Amino acid sequence: MIVVMRRNAPEQDIQHMIKQVESLGLKPTVLRGTERTVIAAIGDERNAPAGILESGPSVDEVLPVLAPYKIASLETKAEPTVVRAGSLTVGGGRLGVIAGPCSVESEEQIVASAHAIKKSGATALRGGAFKPRTSPYSFQGLKEEGLKLLATARAETGLAVVTEVVAAEDIDVVSEYADVLQVGARNMQNYRLLEACGRTHRPVLLKRGPSATIEELLLAAEYILDAGNQQVMLCERGIRTFEAHTRFTLPLATVPYLHAKTHLPVVVDPSHGTGHTPLVAAMARAAIAAGADGIIVEVHPNPEKALSDGYQSMTFPQFDDMMTGCRKVAAAMDMQI
Amino acid sequence: MIVVMRRNAPEQDIQHMIKQVESLGLKPTVLRGTERTVIAAIGDERNAPAGILESGPSVDEVLPVLAPYKIASLETKAEPTVVRAGSLTVGGGRLGVIAGPCSVESEEQIVASAHAIKKSGATALRGGAFKPRTSPYSFQGLKEEGLKLLATARAETGLAVVTEVVAAEDIDVVSEYADVLQVGARNMQNYRLLEACGRTHRPVLLKRGPSATIEELLLAAEYILDAGNQQVMLCERGIRTFEAHTRFTLPLATVPYLHAKTHLPVVVDPSHGTGHTPLVAAMARAAIAAGADGIIVEVHPNPEKALSDGYQSMTFPQFDDMMTGCRKVAAAMDMQI
Amino acid sequence: MIVVMRRNAPEQDIQHMIKQVESLGLKPTVLRGTERTVIAAIGDERNAPAGILESGPSVDEVLPVLAPYKIASLETKAEPTVVRAGSLTVGGGRLGVIAGPCSVESEEQIVASAHAIKKSGATALRGGAFKPRTSPYSFQGLKEEGLKLLATARAETGLAVVTEVVAAEDIDVVSEYADVLQVGARNMQNYRLLEACGRTHRPVLLKRGPSATIEELLLAAEYILDAGNQQVMLCERGIRTFEAHTRFTLPLATVPYLHAKTHLPVVVDPSHGTGHTPLVAAMARAAIAAGADGIIVEVHPNPEKALSDGYQSMTFPQFDDMMTGCRKVAAAMDMQI
Amino acid sequence: MIVVMRRNAPEQDIQHMIKQVESLGLKPTVLRGTERTVIAAIGDERNAPAGILESGPSVDEVLPVLAPYKIASLETKAEPTVVRAGSLTVGGGRLGVIAGPCSVESEEQIVASAHAIKKSGATALRGGAFKPRTSPYSFQGLKEEGLKLLATARAETGLAVVTEVVAAEDIDVVSEYADVLQVGARNMQNYRLLEACGRTHRPVLLKRGPSATIEELLLAAEYILDAGNQQVMLCERGIRTFEAHTRFTLPLATVPYLHAKTHLPVVVDPSHGTGHTPLVAAMARAAIAAGADGIIVEVHPNPEKALSDGYQSMTFPQFDDMMTGCRKVAAAMDMQI
Repeated sequence: MIVVMRRNAPEQDIQHMIKQVESLGLKPTVLRGTERTVIAAIGDERNAPAGILESGPSVDEVLPVLAPYKIASLETKAEPTVVRAGSLTVGGGRLGVIAGPCSVESEEQIVASAHAIKKSGATALRGGAFKPRTSPYSFQGLKEEGLKLLATARAETGLAVVTEVVAAEDIDVVSEYADVLQVGARNMQNYRLLEACGRTHRPVLLKRGPSATIEELLLAAEYILDAGNQQVMLCERGIRTFEAHTRFTLPLATVPYLHAKTHLPVVVDPSHGTGHTPLVAAMARAAIAAGADGIIVEVHPNPEKALSDGYQSMTFPQFDDMMTGCRKVAAAMDMQI
Repeated sequence: MIVVMRRNAPEQDIQHMIKQVESLGLKPTVLRGTERTVIAAIGDERNAPAGILESGPSVDEVLPVLAPYKIASLETKAEPTVVRAGSLTVGGGRLGVIAGPCSVESEEQIVASAHAIKKSGATALRGGAFKPRTSPYSFQGLKEEGLKLLATARAETGLAVVTEVVAAEDIDVVSEYADVLQVGARNMQNYRLLEACGRTHRPVLLKRGPSATIEELLLAAEYILDAGNQQVMLCERGIRTFEAHTRFTLPLATVPYLHAKTHLPVVVDPSHGTGHTPLVAAMARAAIAAGADGIIVEVHPNPEKALSDGYQSMTFPQFDDMMTGCRKVAAAMDMQI
Repeated sequence: MIVVMRRNAPEQDIQHMIKQVESLGLKPTVLRGTERTVIAAIGDERNAPAGILESGPSVDEVLPVLAPYKIASLETKAEPTVVRAGSLTVGGGRLGVIAGPCSVESEEQIVASAHAIKKSGATALRGGAFKPRTSPYSFQGLKEEGLKLLATARAETGLAVVTEVVAAEDIDVVSEYADVLQVGARNMQNYRLLEACGRTHRPVLLKRGPSATIEELLLAAEYILDAGNQQVMLCERGIRTFEAHTRFTLPLATVPYLHAKTHLPVVVDPSHGTGHTPLVAAMARAAIAAGADGIIVEVHPNPEKALSDGYQSMTFPQFDDMMTGCRKVAAAMDMQI
Repeated sequence: MIVVMRRNAPEQDIQHMIKQVESLGLKPTVLRGTERTVIAAIGDERNAPAGILESGPSVDEVLPVLAPYKIASLETKAEPTVVRAGSLTVGGGRLGVIAGPCSVESEEQIVASAHAIKKSGATALRGGAFKPRTSPYSFQGLKEEGLKLLATARAETGLAVVTEVVAAEDIDVVSEYADVLQVGARNMQNYRLLEACGRTHRPVLLKRGPSATIEELLLAAEYILDAGNQQVMLCERGIRTFEAHTRFTLPLATVPYLHAKTHLPVVVDPSHGTGHTPLVAAMARAAIAAGADGIIVEVHPNPEKALSDGYQSMTFPQFDDMMTGCRKVAAAMDMQI
C-alpha cells in the first residue's frame, strides 16, 4: 500500500504511520517528495485492511497496490478454467449458449422451450423455479415442482439445466435436479449462500450485482473458490447507471477486462443487460465479438403470456434468428458452439 | 397503465392490445392522437405485470400509473409510523441517534462505546456480530458471542441494541439479544430474510441497497409489512455513483421524498454514506435539517485499531462534537432527541 | 402527455388541470380510475413544456408520450442517412473506420500515422488541432498549424480528415481544412457551437456527452439538423458510471437503440469508451457486431511519447491486428469497409 | 506518481520505466515487493501526464499522488476566499441567498420577483437572459433585453444580479449588466468561456457539470483563476445517477469535501439538484447544515406559467416559508445571512 501524507504533515505523524505500517507486518519505505511525504508499505497487504491506515493522523489517502482476490487471479492460475456440465461447455474456445424462459411455468412450456432452443443451437436450458421478485405480489416460482419439470425437460432433450438458488437452505434440493447453480445478481453478496455453493460439486454461474465493482465480483467468486469449488463462471448482466432507455447498462468491456485478470470464464446476459427484446440479438453478437465464453438468453413460447420478464424474452423464431447471427460472429472469432 | 403504440401501428395490433388489457382485468380506453394511439388501462394495475403489455405488437412503451407498493404507502396510512424499541424512539418528532462500532470486538470495546455514546446523547447502540464482508479474508464477526456482549452493554447502559441479521436461519438467535434487527444494504433484496423479519416482533431497520431505487426499497419494506411486522424504519446509506472522492454518494433528497410517499420513518447513515470520518458530522447535521427521523453513526474507541470500517468511524470526542452540532440543528427543526 | 393526479385530488384541481391542458392547445380526456384520475392530453406536446403541467395543484406526475425530437426521428425519415466525406462513407452497409492520434503533434507524426492507418484499412484520419483539456496545464493543441498538417496528411494519402471544433468562432478556419467537423463530448450541449455547425456544409460527428441521455443526444443533433445540415453522425464514446476499472463505461446497446429511433448513422469510439489500450480491439469488434456504422480509434506512432491520451492509443501494429479482427466481424455482419 | 508493475515484469521493462520517469523530470525510487515491483516517481507530477507512464510495457497501473489543481488548492492559500458583489457576500461566515426565476420573461415578472425575494431575505437576484436549452424548440431567453430588465430590477431593489453567460463572445455585454457571471453546468468544460471569464473583473459562479468529478470542477475553476480572476464560487447543482425520482442527485458531501480541499466558497442549488419544488426547502436547509456558503433557488410569481423550469420553481409564499426554516438552521450554524 501507498500511504500519502498531507502536505506539512508533522514529523510525529509520519513516525506514527511508519509504526502502524510495521504493526501490520508490512515494510515501510519513506519517500520525501517536494510537496508531500509518501510511505510505501511493502508486503502482502491483503492481510492488512487499508481502512486502518486511512484513519491515521495527517493521512490524505491510502492507495492499494495488490488486488484483494487470490484464487480467482490469473496471477495464481494462468490457464483459463473450462466449466463443463453435461451438454454445456464454457471456456477454452467453446461458447456456451444457455437459453430458456425466466420462470418454469408448466411442463408444456419448459419442454417446448427446451426442444426449440436445442434445435436452434443452445447447449443448456435455463429456467427459474425459485424466483426472487422485487415485489411480494409477483409470481414467486413453482419451487421444487419447477425443478422436477426442468429435470423432465433435460430427460427429453439432453440439455444441461441451469437454475437459480436463492438461499443456502435450498442448496440440497436444487443440486439434486440442476446441473449448474445460478447465483442471481441480488444475491451476489449473500455470503452464506456463496459459501454453501462452494461446498457443492455443482458448477456455479455467478451473476454480477448491478452496482458491484469487478473487484467485488471477483471477491464474491473468491468465497466460492475458497470453500472448495473451482467450477465458477462469472456473468455480466448489466449495471445500474443513469440510462433509462434500457433497464440496465451492459458494459461489455467487462469481458476483455476479466480475461486479463482472472482465469474464470465469462458469460454475458443480454436479456437482463438490456431489458428489451429488440436489443437482445445485437448485444448477444457483440458479447461474442468482445470475447465472451458464453451467453445466457431468455426465450419463451409466448412472451406476452409469460409470468415474468416477458418484455425481454424472445420468441422461438426470434431466438432462431439470433443464433444465425451469433454463429457467424462466433465463426469470425474462431469460437465453437 | 398507459400503453403507447408506435406511430402507424396497424389497427389489428391496437385491437390485440385492447384485448390484452381486458385479459388483465383492466378497462381499456383508446385515445387516438394526431401522431399516435394510446390505450389507457384503468384499474388496479399492481396485479398486472407491466412487462406483459410491453412485449405486445407495435407497443412502444408502457407507462405505469400506480406505485406498486401498498401497505408502505402514505395513501394507505396517513399518520407517520413511530418505531419504539426500549430507549430508542424514531419518528413523530423524536430523533433517534444510533451509534457504536461497526463490529463488536470485545466486551471492553463495546461497553466503553456504549457508555461514551450515551453520555454524548445517543439513544441506541449499534454493533455488528454477524458481519457480511466483501472479502472472505476479512474479519467476519464474533457471531453469537458478539450478541452476548451487546446484551451486556445494554445491561450496563440501558441503551437499546441494533444489530444486523444476515440470514433467515439466524433470526431466532439475533432476536433473542437484539432490540432492533438491521437488514444490511447487501441483503435488501434477500426476500427469504425479509419475510423472516416480517414474522418476528422486533422492529427492523432496513437499509437501502446501493443501487436500489426508492420503489425497490419500498417494495422490500413491503415484504416485511406484508408478513405482519409494521415496525419498519427505512435507512438511506448512500448509493453507487461515479463519484470516487466519497465511498458512496449520500442523496439526502431521499428523506423528504420518502416522507411524501410513505408513513415509515427515515434514518440516515452518514458513516457509510460518505465513507470518510471527516465528512460524517456535516452530513449528520444535513440529514437532520433535511427532516430525517434518525441517524446511525459509526463510533469506535480507537478507529486506527478497528477490525472493520476504521476509515469512517469517529472517536468518542469526534462523536461528542458532532452531537453538539446535531443538537443545535435538531432544535432548529423542532426535533427532540 | 398523461397527467397523473394524486389520489383524492379535489375536483377543482382536476378542473384546473383540464383548463391548463386546453391552454396549451392540447385536447384533454379525463379517465377516472379506481384510485386516481388521469388526464390524457392529446396533440403535439412538443410545443407544450411538460414542466408547466407538473407544477399544477394535486399533480403527481406528468408522463410524456411523444419524443421531443423531430427531424432526427425515424418516424420523420425512414431511410437511413448515409454520410459521405471524401474517402469516408458511414451508413448504408458501409463501415467507416476513422483512426489517428489524439492530437496532431508534428508533420512527421501525422503523416506517418495517416500512411500506417490507411495501409491497415482505415477510411479517414482523425487528429486534434484545437484540444479541449481538463487541466489548463495540459497541451492545448497546435491550433491552425495543426489543421495545416492534417491537410498535408490528406494530400499525401487521400484520407478524409476528421477534426474537432471547440467554439463557434473557429468554425470557418476548421471548415477550411477539415472534411468532417467533430463536436466533442464536452461540447455536446454547447448550443451556439451546434447551431454554427448546422450552418456549414461539412458533415458533423457529434459525440455523446458522458452524462447525456439518448434523448439529449438526439436533441443536440436536432440543433444541427434544424439549422440546415443533414449530414450528422452520432458517436457513442462512453458514459460516466460507478465503474472505475475503465475510464468510461461503453454502452453498446446505444447502437441498436439509436437505429430503432433515428435515421442518423452511429459511430462508436472504443478508445475513449474504455480508456485503456488493451480493451480497445475487443470493443471495436463488439461495436461492429452490435451494428455500428463506423468506429473511431486513437492510434499513435509511439503512445509512450504522445502529448495526450497515450494510455488509450494503439501502436501501428496493434491497430493492424485490430483491423484483422474487425474485418472478420464486419464480414460476418455483411458490412463493407 | 506511483507506477505499479505487473507481477513478473521483466527487468528490462522495469529499467525502461525508470528511464521514462527520469525523462519526465521526476526522481524514481524502486520498491521491490514480494509480489510486484513499484516505482515511486517523486517531484511535481502535474507537469507529467500520467497517461504517458500508463502506456509503458508491463505497467499495471499508475496512481497519481498530487492533485492536479494548484491555485484553487487550500494548500496554496489557507484562508477562505470571500466573494463580494454589491449586496451579495458569500463565504467567511456569510451565507449568500440568490433567488429568482429561471428565465427573465418580462419587466413585471422580474421586478416583482426581486421585491418578493428581497422581502423574504434573499441577498441577490438570479434570472436567465441567455438560456441554454436542451431542445431547439424551447424558449431561448430574451438575450440583451433580459439583461436590461435585470438591471431595472437591481435599480429598484438594490439586489446584485447573477446571470448566465453561455459564450465567450457574450462576456462583454453580460458583464455590462451583471454583478456575477454564472457559468452553467453544460459549460463547465467550455474552456474558451472559462478563460474569457478569467479575464473579466466580475465574480464567477461556476456550476458543476452533472457528470464532473470534484477534480474536474476544481480544474475548471483553475482555468478562471489562472487567467487572473480570483473571485470564483463553486456551485453543486446535482449529478446524474440512476435515481429517477429526482431530476438529479444532490450530493451534499461535496460541501465539506470542497472545504477541505479548496479556499473557494461553495454554493448549493437545491432547485436543479432535485428538480421538484416540494423537495427544495428541505435540501436548502440541509445544504446550510452541511456548511454551504450560499444557496441559489428558483422562484417565480406563477410557476404554472413559467417559460422554463416551472416544475422546480417556488412561489413567493413557498420561498418565504423556506427562508424561515433556513434562517433557523443558519443560526444553528452561526452563519449570518
